[in-house]
Amino acid sequence: MTTTERLSLVTPTVEEGRDLAIKLARSTVKATQPDAEVRARLRPVYAEDPLALVAIAHVVAAEFATIAAANDYWR
Amino acid sequence: MTTTERLSLVTPTVEEGRDLAIKLARSTVKATQPDAEVRARLRPVYAEDPLALVAIAHVVAAEFATIAAANDYWR
Amino acid sequence: MTTTERLSLVTPTVEEGRDLAIKLARSTVKATQPDAEVRARLRPVYAEDPLALVAIAHVVAAEFATIAAANDYWR
Amino acid sequence: MTTTERLSLVTPTVEEGRDLAIKLARSTVKATQPDAEVRARLRPVYAEDPLALVAIAHVVAAEFATIAAANDYWR
Amino acid sequence: MTTTERLSLVTPTVEEGRDLAIKLARSTVKATQPDAEVRARLRPVYAEDPLALVAIAHVVAAEFATIAAANDYWR
Amino acid sequence: MTTTERLSLVTPTVEEGRDLAIKLARSTVKATQPDAEVRARLRPVYAEDPLALVAIAHVVAAEFATIAAANDYWR
Repeated sequence: MTTTERLSLVTPTVEEGRDLAIKLARSTVKATQPDAEVRARLRPVYAEDPLALVAIAHVVAAEFATIAAANDYWR
Repeated sequence: MTTTERLSLVTPTVEEGRDLAIKLARSTVKATQPDAEVRARLRPVYAEDPLALVAIAHVVAAEFATIAAANDYWR
Repeated sequence: MTTTERLSLVTPTVEEGRDLAIKLARSTVKATQPDAEVRARLRPVYAEDPLALVAIAHVVAAEFATIAAANDYWR
Repeated sequence: MTTTERLSLVTPTVEEGRDLAIKLARSTVKATQPDAEVRARLRPVYAEDPLALVAIAHVVAAEFATIAAANDYWR
Repeated sequence: MTTTERLSLVTPTVEEGRDLAIKLARSTVKATQPDAEVRARLRPVYAEDPLALVAIAHVVAAEFATIAAANDYWR
Repeated sequence: MTTTERLSLVTPTVEEGRDLAIKLARSTVKATQPDAEVRARLRPVYAEDPLALVAIAHVVAAEFATIAAANDYWR
């Protein structure tokens, strides 16, 4: 994942941790399929496919587990 | 996930930890598919599909693992 | 998951930890599909589908990992 | 999982940890589908399906992760 | 995975941790399917399949969790 | 998994940790489908199926996570 601004797993809030988890998951899709047009074309396919929506939620849960540990669960 | 009220992974009971895990999983589906009508239309599809029901249970198990660690397993 | 009796992740034995993992996995399916008749109708479908049986085993393994950590692996 | 002999996650060797992981994964399939005849009928289906074989390997990897942690990785 | 240069899970930045996670995931595909021509032929298939793109993101999330722990989350 | 030589999760290098993860994943497929001829017959099926290749990478990532923890991430 090659982005300019420096990434950190530390976030001030749980909500920002969730948003980062979604961002990281999407960044991998982008790294695998760099063509924005293709990704846009695929969106209506997965966004109305229950199994795809659940699979995306599973990736976000996995990324969030890492981010939550990084933030000591915002305790 | 952009909600107003502040989220915390700390819950008083295991049951509330389970409910939070379900809430977090659903919040990701909502973030991926913001259209409530589409989500409502998809409900009868996944709610009667064994593989979808099991896949949802797997996402909740992953979210719950994070929440349980955040609460030191309510020991 | 809204049940009356108080849940605990702590169990006296590994076997009870396994049973709790199965119970938690099933509770999520129940929370997603509250209609007992629908769940009963789906049973013969997943109970004779190898991929569904393996997917269920994976959810139980994920829930059990959390329960085992909660019990310090019953060491 | 209701078996008579007392289960422990502690094993003398890594190999026995692997065997226990396979045993635990199979015990969940058995708890979900108690009918031995059905399980026997399904065997040729999953045992020659690459995706099913890989999915089983994933469940065993998840169970083994728990068992390895229980044994402090046999270090 | 047999490569000449010595691998380390320690990376200076989160971004490099993400890139390493993608590299490790790809290295396993390469170890399973060493034929570069076959892999190239498969690329348009998975790169335009939402479920495959999400499944790849899930593998990267799993590899990244390990790398993040190795780097103490770059805290 | 019943092999003669004694298994250890401790490896000198990350590369050997990766190779061990692949070996463990394959050992489970072998334990589930002991018939080498059947496994050989299935190889061209999964080795050219993107979803199968990604699913295998996911199993290896899960096994590697355990091995990396066993080696304290080769830090």
